Amino acid sequence: MPYEDLGFAQIDHHRGLRQGFPEVVFCQDKTVEQVCQIVQRIRATGSDVLATRAGQEAFAAVQMLFPEAVYHVQARAIVLRSGQRPLTKGVVLVVSAGTSDIPVAEEAAITAETMGSMTERLYDVGVAGIHRLLDRRERLFQARVLIVVAGMEGALASVVGGLVDKPVIAVPTSVGYGASFGGIAALLTMLNSCAAGVATVNIDNGFGAGYLAHIINLLGE
Amino acid sequence: MPYEDLGFAQIDHHRGLRQGFPEVVFCQDKTVEQVCQIVQRIRATGSDVLATRAGQEAFAAVQMLFPEAVYHVQARAIVLRSGQRPLTKGVVLVVSAGTSDIPVAEEAAITAETMGSMTERLYDVGVAGIHRLLDRRERLFQARVLIVVAGMEGALASVVGGLVDKPVIAVPTSVGYGASFGGIAALLTMLNSCAAGVATVNIDNGFGAGYLAHIINLLGE
Amino acid sequence: MPYEDLGFAQIDHHRGLRQGFPEVVFCQDKTVEQVCQIVQRIRATGSDVLATRAGQEAFAAVQMLFPEAVYHVQARAIVLRSGQRPLTKGVVLVVSAGTSDIPVAEEAAITAETMGSMTERLYDVGVAGIHRLLDRRERLFQARVLIVVAGMEGALASVVGGLVDKPVIAVPTSVGYGASFGGIAALLTMLNSCAAGVATVNIDNGFGAGYLAHIINLLGE
Amino acid sequence: MPYEDLGFAQIDHHRGLRQGFPEVVFCQDKTVEQVCQIVQRIRATGSDVLATRAGQEAFAAVQMLFPEAVYHVQARAIVLRSGQRPLTKGVVLVVSAGTSDIPVAEEAAITAETMGSMTERLYDVGVAGIHRLLDRRERLFQARVLIVVAGMEGALASVVGGLVDKPVIAVPTSVGYGASFGGIAALLTMLNSCAAGVATVNIDNGFGAGYLAHIINLLGE
Amino acid sequence: MPYEDLGFAQIDHHRGLRQGFPEVVFCQDKTVEQVCQIVQRIRATGSDVLATRAGQEAFAAVQMLFPEAVYHVQARAIVLRSGQRPLTKGVVLVVSAGTSDIPVAEEAAITAETMGSMTERLYDVGVAGIHRLLDRRERLFQARVLIVVAGMEGALASVVGGLVDKPVIAVPTSVGYGASFGGIAALLTMLNSCAAGVATVNIDNGFGAGYLAHIINLLGE
Amino acid sequence: MPYEDLGFAQIDHHRGLRQGFPEVVFCQDKTVEQVCQIVQRIRATGSDVLATRAGQEAFAAVQMLFPEAVYHVQARAIVLRSGQRPLTKGVVLVVSAGTSDIPVAEEAAITAETMGSMTERLYDVGVAGIHRLLDRRERLFQARVLIVVAGMEGALASVVGGLVDKPVIAVPTSVGYGASFGGIAALLTMLNSCAAGVATVNIDNGFGAGYLAHIINLLGE
Amino acid sequence: MPYEDLGFAQIDHHRGLRQGFPEVVFCQDKTVEQVCQIVQRIRATGSDVLATRAGQEAFAAVQMLFPEAVYHVQARAIVLRSGQRPLTKGVVLVVSAGTSDIPVAEEAAITAETMGSMTERLYDVGVAGIHRLLDRRERLFQARVLIVVAGMEGALASVVGGLVDKPVIAVPTSVGYGASFGGIAALLTMLNSCAAGVATVNIDNGFGAGYLAHIINLLGE
Amino acid sequence: MPYEDLGFAQIDHHRGLRQGFPEVVFCQDKTVEQVCQIVQRIRATGSDVLATRAGQEAFAAVQMLFPEAVYHVQARAIVLRSGQRPLTKGVVLVVSAGTSDIPVAEEAAITAETMGSMTERLYDVGVAGIHRLLDRRERLFQARVLIVVAGMEGALASVVGGLVDKPVIAVPTSVGYGASFGGIAALLTMLNSCAAGVATVNIDNGFGAGYLAHIINLLGE
Repeated sequence: MPYEDLGFAQIDHHRGLRQGFPEVVFCQDKTVEQVCQIVQRIRATGSDVLATRAGQEAFAAVQMLFPEAVYHVQARAIVLRSGQRPLTKGVVLVVSAGTSDIPVAEEAAITAETMGSMTERLYDVGVAGIHRLLDRRERLFQARVLIVVAGMEGALASVVGGLVDKPVIAVPTSVGYGASFGGIAALLTMLNSCAAGVATVNIDNGFGAGYLAHIINLLGE
Repeated sequence: MPYEDLGFAQIDHHRGLRQGFPEVVFCQDKTVEQVCQIVQRIRATGSDVLATRAGQEAFAAVQMLFPEAVYHVQARAIVLRSGQRPLTKGVVLVVSAGTSDIPVAEEAAITAETMGSMTERLYDVGVAGIHRLLDRRERLFQARVLIVVAGMEGALASVVGGLVDKPVIAVPTSVGYGASFGGIAALLTMLNSCAAGVATVNIDNGFGAGYLAHIINLLGE
Repeated sequence: MPYEDLGFAQIDHHRGLRQGFPEVVFCQDKTVEQVCQIVQRIRATGSDVLATRAGQEAFAAVQMLFPEAVYHVQARAIVLRSGQRPLTKGVVLVVSAGTSDIPVAEEAAITAETMGSMTERLYDVGVAGIHRLLDRRERLFQARVLIVVAGMEGALASVVGGLVDKPVIAVPTSVGYGASFGGIAALLTMLNSCAAGVATVNIDNGFGAGYLAHIINLLGE
Repeated sequence: MPYEDLGFAQIDHHRGLRQGFPEVVFCQDKTVEQVCQIVQRIRATGSDVLATRAGQEAFAAVQMLFPEAVYHVQARAIVLRSGQRPLTKGVVLVVSAGTSDIPVAEEAAITAETMGSMTERLYDVGVAGIHRLLDRRERLFQARVLIVVAGMEGALASVVGGLVDKPVIAVPTSVGYGASFGGIAALLTMLNSCAAGVATVNIDNGFGAGYLAHIINLLGE
Repeated sequence: MPYEDLGFAQIDHHRGLRQGFPEVVFCQDKTVEQVCQIVQRIRATGSDVLATRAGQEAFAAVQMLFPEAVYHVQARAIVLRSGQRPLTKGVVLVVSAGTSDIPVAEEAAITAETMGSMTERLYDVGVAGIHRLLDRRERLFQARVLIVVAGMEGALASVVGGLVDKPVIAVPTSVGYGASFGGIAALLTMLNSCAAGVATVNIDNGFGAGYLAHIINLLGE
Repeated sequence: MPYEDLGFAQIDHHRGLRQGFPEVVFCQDKTVEQVCQIVQRIRATGSDVLATRAGQEAFAAVQMLFPEAVYHVQARAIVLRSGQRPLTKGVVLVVSAGTSDIPVAEEAAITAETMGSMTERLYDVGVAGIHRLLDRRERLFQARVLIVVAGMEGALASVVGGLVDKPVIAVPTSVGYGASFGGIAALLTMLNSCAAGVATVNIDNGFGAGYLAHIINLLGE
Repeated sequence: MPYEDLGFAQIDHHRGLRQGFPEVVFCQDKTVEQVCQIVQRIRATGSDVLATRAGQEAFAAVQMLFPEAVYHVQARAIVLRSGQRPLTKGVVLVVSAGTSDIPVAEEAAITAETMGSMTERLYDVGVAGIHRLLDRRERLFQARVLIVVAGMEGALASVVGGLVDKPVIAVPTSVGYGASFGGIAALLTMLNSCAAGVATVNIDNGFGAGYLAHIINLLGE
Repeated sequence: MPYEDLGFAQIDHHRGLRQGFPEVVFCQDKTVEQVCQIVQRIRATGSDVLATRAGQEAFAAVQMLFPEAVYHVQARAIVLRSGQRPLTKGVVLVVSAGTSDIPVAEEAAITAETMGSMTERLYDVGVAGIHRLLDRRERLFQARVLIVVAGMEGALASVVGGLVDKPVIAVPTSVGYGASFGGIAALLTMLNSCAAGVATVNIDNGFGAGYLAHIINLLGE
């Protein structure tokens, strides 16, 4: 399993090589220089790149080197690709409880798309107005994998999990105030979901949800 | 405002005198002897009594002294009354998410009833099977005050709060396991509810919910 | 139940239509553009608007579009109304423990007023100088619903709850330092209140308290 | 969607009817009588039954009514089936870190099997002796879905997640002492896993992991 | 500073020698044998003994050796004295919020008395019935040091601290349920008290409060 | 008991009047205007003033109104006095564990001094170099009340408490990093102190410690 | 690296073979049968055995099989050896703060001894009586590695760490009550120690401390 | 044991004098002036200096006074030495899980080096790509002491601890997001490590790890 030693980073090339997946760079806590160096090494192997948690400066620097770089502002993700991969037939549906949860939802959606999944979005359908969700019941039923993104009390994952019989990946967000404790309330709600078929990723971890949704989605192709 | 000094307890008689409410005895952490002494003093003033968190032994001892005592097993409540009070026209509806939440729900219902409220019950309608709740939508709409009792992830309060425009009192229960942390998960969910019109009482505090529901209910008579 | 799909938000019009209530916009974590768009859609239905957690910039932008917008600085709330609604006869009394709790208390008071409740205020009467509260005992007794706003140790809710026999809504605030943990100390105090008739909302959730107080208050009209 | 009202429980029959899945009864916090009543109603519809968190007494009582009941001691699960369902071709591999994690691992394995998945087990291969895991690398690669069960520091999920490119469901257990805090340490480790493709269920929630693994596994059939 | 080495314990004799104070033995987590051995060594120096957190068995064993031993049941304290010490003129007043807090209050009172302080008690005067406390205002004003013992929300310390200008030692108790978290709620309330002149000891630490109250009380003799 | 109503604040004049103490203003979370208004009202009664947690701007504004105002930079305290009060004979000794704890220690010392206590300071004598403390043993023994200020692990309070037989007030500070959790580690250490005679105030609450030390100190005059 | 597969356990033989160390069995959460099976397999390789957290029943069963088994009651450890290993010249000194910490201290001491280290013990020298520790300063200075075992506030590790210039391994214990939170207070104290040269193991983890002390001690032979 | 009193600091000279170690200054929460004053006093005794947690400004000011000062940017450490000390033969190996953990790893490495230890570095070898670590197995085996630095889930310490039989010092870092809680997740993982021979220091405490590693390393010279 090949990897490359930059001193400050050991770049792992095997996923890209083995599966044709893009390589992923997690930009948080890395300097712009470190991000650029890592992107260059990956790009040199011909692999596509998905850089998450990337700010505007990181994007500007990467774009200088690779004009084909695309920035997804809400998702805070940079994507570099060579050509278009065919998308899956199965759909990953990303559902968000509120408007403020959209950045995390977008990180999930962009990740799944960049990996190769067909994705759809359904935003601001939190449980306080349950009819907004139930009206779109059909879209829930048609998805092969669902990602539910919610802050505050995070109850949406349980409701969706109770409606569908497909895997649901719950993403708590740090949206909220007071006793939401930066996402802990939503996280606990999701972990304690009384609906079967729900698993949870870290607070604000849109990438993790999108990646997992994609590899589950692939099983059905 | 009259009260009576037993040394280990100062019994407050003014609520009973002023409002015709039963006096309340919280039995947890009290000895059977202390409970009996307090009940006797209250009963001597002619007031009705509601004794909560009472075990079978406490009931047996009280019943020896007052054969009219009634024990509500699930609610763990002893009630002593002289005659029947007329009930309110408005309904307090007690909704529970699961079967295991019923003891707390019953404490709430018995409290509201003993205080003088008409009550109804709707049990085991948690959000993982949302159709069980939505089918009874009419009953939700007809209540004047709603009490929602839920453990585990506690999401039911938000869904009910989003459906009705009446006051909702949320009661988290300690039912659950793992990351439910003895009711903390449900408590946080309820405090962070994105539905307006919801307030929360302490974990397992069925009495507090029933009492508050009754004094709200009285406003509408 | 009508709602409108803006992509990033599903605006729910039914409360405004059904009850003549103003529609509510929670501005925190929304961009100024999102706030403006939502306000425009609501205003287009003829409904009044209450926008909470709104900063000065959001107000400036909204006022450009709707000159009738009024900004309540301490409450950080924008109100847009068409004509004056008659107020309730029953009074919602907002009590604060300290000077620093006033912003949250004002959010509660402005919310209740905008919804249509007559409100009164009693500020800086915390339990460390209990005579300041007891001197105003009469004002406490005359209210139909009470909101108690307190940070630090949050003990005021228990004392007020013990004095009155009307519903008390407790609002913990994040005011304090050290082991107040951003409002957790006050929250726990209120949840554990030994006074019956008290329920609690989220830390700093003045809006939730004001809204709930109003729908309780309405029951008595 | 059909369900049946027992007063204390609303039994949901639709999963069994729709998918041929067994109905599930969560026995914790239910009385033996309640368990028996629920099992009878489900069995009356012809559905198979999986009763989790069932003690020896519950099993004894169920077996009196249904001699075909089978008890899995370590998993604490009762299974009632009419005939044998064909198993999936894809394998759900259940991996445990330590000997003490086996009860939870067995709950996961029995659940997946009862639902219809082919399962395998690989126990006591925690990271402190990493060669025990690496030696079985091939078995990891051959699974379609993996469940990793670990208490104490819970690091196994990250290591397994880094080796495979299939979905990994992490189950923290309450095994440990001191600063493991009843499973919180393992839970946090799993939520923070730096390996992509991992999602987490509640502490000790073997059932949830087994159920989710099965519906993921089904996608690949 | 003399001490004696028992291998499992180093007994410190200097306080008893220097101040005529009784030596103190903390019995929790010690075997009855260890308690007896330590008491014997102390008694051999002629010092009085106060043994706290002592169960009935420990008392029985000590009484066999020293018939003059006295057991205070509620306080769970054994006292051995040779003759009577004169008491202070200043009074340590022990105030408790509820009946269930009495064991901790008694540990505090017995400790202060055994050390040599005149003590008084005022029990079950929690803030939910504030008139019960205010009626005894004079007794509060006459004390030189006050100990306030309260569980649940622990608000009594702030109210008392606001009324008097003498030192107040607050003792949170583990009495309560749900979000009282074994005394944490009361502890935080007391630490965050907005009344000046209040300091806090550990949850249920009646001994610590009684000891500190005594050495403060001594300053005024 | 006289107080004055400013709308946003109820100023309590009785302590100043009764005891000749300065009135205290807690400036945190108050605007400069509010601080000035309150100081003016107090000063109008002829009372001295101690304003704590005051920034440079608050001081500048107060000094414009009252040129006699003095600012203690490290303590962040403003003092206004008319003439000099005689100091106590007994000494309040303020001990700090580290250099970084000095601001909190100074708040305690300035408070005690302004109230009228003779104070001494002993700084940077934390337990990692225990000889630095033991060398000053005599100064510890000569104090009537001790205040121990410590962050990080907060062990100093126990060591001092074990050396002296006078009251020790422990003040945890938020100094530290990592698992000091903003002072929680030091707070817990102090609450669990195995030395008798120690009580604790809130994290960083130098004022509370200084005030309590003074009223204890007064008892010995 | 050889290991043996029992199904429920993978026994690792390489440490014993490589270093002549005894193999270690952690008995908590294992059945007596599992313990016996594992001990038999290890013993069959000729290796010595240390079984920790072993109750009386486990010992009785093991002794039936291997009469040479020795049980250390306080340490709750079973030792099986073939002949005596020579001990190190360097000393591991185990220091405990209180009498109640001795079981954990003994687990550490027995572990280090069984591994092959010369050990000494110094018990009940907590910081509240600092002279008891300072009197034995020479014994501290002569040790090559120190283990400090303390519950409650855990301050002893910092004081010892400040006195010596050798490695100090701190072991928090769950001894205490109230805000000691089962050892969290002591754990945080030790992690935040301002003395350099201190590292911490899990709460009550005497084995871990003894093992680490031994491998450090070996470096100096 | 000599020390010097600066009023705000008591500088301890004995380590430098006794062992030829550099004196250490912890700069966090100290002003630049305080740092300079302390460095001057230490330097005046001829001792080397290591100043940790030092920002660029502190370095600039120190360099004005002592041109020989060297700044290690990533480690945020200033080193002042007179001549070169010979390094140990044994190696301290510093291993980091990710790129973002490097600042803490560097603080550990620079500390050990400045004290006199030969050090090596192995960075970005976290468990999600376990082959990157296993490929360097030999380097792990050759070290005398290992420091493992990891944030997020912190699992690397257990894996390394299972591979080597030398002391492992685990350093959790605050790197991560969401449920990593500023390093708590990694801290708990390390404390609960199922690998023997691992002890943990405070979150981000690179200095503590480097210092302890050095004094352990010295034992083997």
